[in-house]
Amino acid sequence: MSDHHYERVVVPASLIETLREKFGDRVSTAQAVLDQHGKDEGWHDASPPDAVVFATSTEDVAETVKLCAAHNVPIVPFGTGSSLEGHVAALRGGICIDVSRMDKILEINNDDLDCRVQAGVTREQLNEHLRDTGLFFPIDPGANASIGGMTATRASGTNAVRYGTMRDNVLSLTVVTPEGKVIKTAHRARKSSAGYDLTRLFVGSEGTLGVITEIGLKLYGIPEAMSAAVCAFPSVEAAVNTTIMTIQAGIPVARIELLDALQIRAVNNYSKTGYEEKPTLFFEFHGTEAGVKEQAEFVQSVAEEFGGEGFQWATRAEDRTKLWAARHKAYYASLQLEPGKRGMSTDVCVPISRLAEAIMETREDCDASILTCTMVGHVGDGNFHTLILLDPEKPEEVAEAHRLHERMVMRSLRLGGTCTGEHGIGYGKLAFMEAEHGPDTIAIMQAIKHAIDPKGLMNPGKLVPGA
Amino acid sequence: MSDHHYERVVVPASLIETLREKFGDRVSTAQAVLDQHGKDEGWHDASPPDAVVFATSTEDVAETVKLCAAHNVPIVPFGTGSSLEGHVAALRGGICIDVSRMDKILEINNDDLDCRVQAGVTREQLNEHLRDTGLFFPIDPGANASIGGMTATRASGTNAVRYGTMRDNVLSLTVVTPEGKVIKTAHRARKSSAGYDLTRLFVGSEGTLGVITEIGLKLYGIPEAMSAAVCAFPSVEAAVNTTIMTIQAGIPVARIELLDALQIRAVNNYSKTGYEEKPTLFFEFHGTEAGVKEQAEFVQSVAEEFGGEGFQWATRAEDRTKLWAARHKAYYASLQLEPGKRGMSTDVCVPISRLAEAIMETREDCDASILTCTMVGHVGDGNFHTLILLDPEKPEEVAEAHRLHERMVMRSLRLGGTCTGEHGIGYGKLAFMEAEHGPDTIAIMQAIKHAIDPKGLMNPGKLVPGA
Repeated sequence: MSDHHYERVVVPASLIETLREKFGDRVSTAQAVLDQHGKDEGWHDASPPDAVVFATSTEDVAETVKLCAAHNVPIVPFGTGSSLEGHVAALRGGICIDVSRMDKILEINNDDLDCRVQAGVTREQLNEHLRDTGLFFPIDPGANASIGGMTATRASGTNAVRYGTMRDNVLSLTVVTPEGKVIKTAHRARKSSAGYDLTRLFVGSEGTLGVITEIGLKLYGIPEAMSAAVCAFPSVEAAVNTTIMTIQAGIPVARIELLDALQIRAVNNYSKTGYEEKPTLFFEFHGTEAGVKEQAEFVQSVAEEFGGEGFQWATRAEDRTKLWAARHKAYYASLQLEPGKRGMSTDVCVPISRLAEAIMETREDCDASILTCTMVGHVGDGNFHTLILLDPEKPEEVAEAHRLHERMVMRSLRLGGTCTGEHGIGYGKLAFMEAEHGPDTIAIMQAIKHAIDPKGLMNPGKLVPGA
Repeated sequence: MSDHHYERVVVPASLIETLREKFGDRVSTAQAVLDQHGKDEGWHDASPPDAVVFATSTEDVAETVKLCAAHNVPIVPFGTGSSLEGHVAALRGGICIDVSRMDKILEINNDDLDCRVQAGVTREQLNEHLRDTGLFFPIDPGANASIGGMTATRASGTNAVRYGTMRDNVLSLTVVTPEGKVIKTAHRARKSSAGYDLTRLFVGSEGTLGVITEIGLKLYGIPEAMSAAVCAFPSVEAAVNTTIMTIQAGIPVARIELLDALQIRAVNNYSKTGYEEKPTLFFEFHGTEAGVKEQAEFVQSVAEEFGGEGFQWATRAEDRTKLWAARHKAYYASLQLEPGKRGMSTDVCVPISRLAEAIMETREDCDASILTCTMVGHVGDGNFHTLILLDPEKPEEVAEAHRLHERMVMRSLRLGGTCTGEHGIGYGKLAFMEAEHGPDTIAIMQAIKHAIDPKGLMNPGKLVPGA
């Protein structure tokens, strides 16, 4: 389903041998393990590595990187494999460094609302660990991704309207550089003007500049009150306009999620819910009792102005959980619309004033297509996703999916948006980088890549065109 | 007052001539103009450029940069000159590009809560322009700095607790690269995962990677309600503990400013106010009527728990203005404590749990010194400032100021903090970069600097040690 052509590097047997001497059975060349590590949850072709090292410490990573560098062998970092744009595919072969066993929570600083974790800690693991502290980590991309992977792809998800993305919530990083050196990008102060913002450079760098091994994160107090609501609208436009007015009024809503009518049908079938089959917004409000009430009342009145009806409240934790579980399963629900097909999942993000236009034109494209597509959106940020169902064995369906995808991206760029709000580039969106940024901006990215990774061994073929 | 030794480049007369042909009387070599451009508001030695070009467009900047690059002549960007660490000093001579005439507000997108401005627009000018839109730009470093300068130094100031710093509020940049190419770092979407975060790399780069010519900024709706308050405390510790508890409780306070007892005396003398001469917190709350009331009541109860007394409210706009005017003049007020002396202004930022310790040890150092020092802090962020008054003609006072400064910085680093929370590095804090980051992290910064500015012409001698 893709047309990359990379020559695979021949990994010397002596390298694998040396790795085995150092790490014993934490090095695997079993085909099943290689296959599992060469593919993420997206629709892109697999490309297995030649070996997988299961690191348990920053030092393990540094040693592995040094050995690979000495042999000019590519390195692909791996967290949980829940990325979507082929980020973990070993396009030139080489060694995959799996950090999932680096699952230690190193510090929780309650007084400073921050923590430090190893890269393999997952977001659910972290929140489970925080359960009794009154704190939580809000970034939620749906999958139970590793914090390292979320950092590397600049993940965001449903809570980003209020809490920001990984860009805003990473305080500091420990990184193994392509030379195998261990650096810290920052310390624990909440702000600093001391030099280049290396933290933000590595956030979203997709393993192309080094391997992230430890992450300092902001934490938040669990809000005193939370409530969620569901509201159906007569049209996508009405739902989007409700969103725009809410954001413009400065309402600090925690989440606003749009599901289109077809997505609602899929959710109803899959999760046995009974939502009306119309474009629907899911809301969540965080704050004090009075604040949440005030926010919710405001949003309800806006929704009604745009024809929203049947505002359903979920203030009890179990009702909220049920509601968000239905939302989080939207992907699997969509796949069940046409069992046996695969889903091409993609996302774009536009200025919120252009969101209605972007979504409606995309919906028209999809309606006119031979393929079935569902749409969901983190619409408070101007970010939305399309899942295109296709049979990968049918070239005409693959071609049509590519056509829809490309039109969606080019529409986003035309409206002042970006080719991806949160999935990242991997190799799946590499072809859009120049259209989005232009050759001179790409040249700066290439210069940075080359300066930090002159041998081009770090996750080659990803993020930076031609690097 | 500093010991830099840079060889000045000989600027060819032909370059100045060509610049004059292109820009006419927008090129100046008048000594008064050169002197004014070689020095900022800090305490560091001046180093005038050889000529100043007053640019009015991105194209002017690009042409100037190309010409300078062709002649290997250094370039120093200049906004309003309100930086504090010698950022604008032309240490190797060369051409200063003054962007203050680039003062156009290019777009206001009300629906998206964003705008685009030329680099010379000042924050007061922008807010004046926004007056009738219901929007405002919150970042307020005190001085009426240019947005370009604020971006280049990653400024923050009093509102950062709630609204973040320039890092969080810049959406996109137009930058003239050291080759003279014009790039855009991003578009208008609120979030993106499309490649390296060049926006954040240029925010805080202090002119060492290129010249920022246009800035896309987030804007905010003017809150429905605002109120401010002043409260005196029995000790710095009590004031800091009140701050810590407020932040930990997740109260979205807009500003919390600490003035120590001596600073209060200076303010009273200078602004004819009658605050009690004790460590004092100034607060501001933004939100809905009910939200502001709720926040303020919570904070008042915390303050009282720590012995805060005489909580004075200012809900009327004019009272708030008076209160913040007194705070903003703290610097000039301090200078009046010992007329004729100069002020060495410095800032550090630590994790908030270490803030009481950092401030109290610094206060003890100052009390034991022959020099007079006042302290103010954006304490909600863990950020505080010391102003050390000294006679630059007396070497023992200069040496003592350096000793106090160095101890303050090293204390901050020991407590997990940074050598500067918002003033930046310039050349004034260059000596602390390695202590803060370590040689391997500095090497990555050097690699980036060298990759983007291989000739080393962009604001040489600033930010990156040895570059």
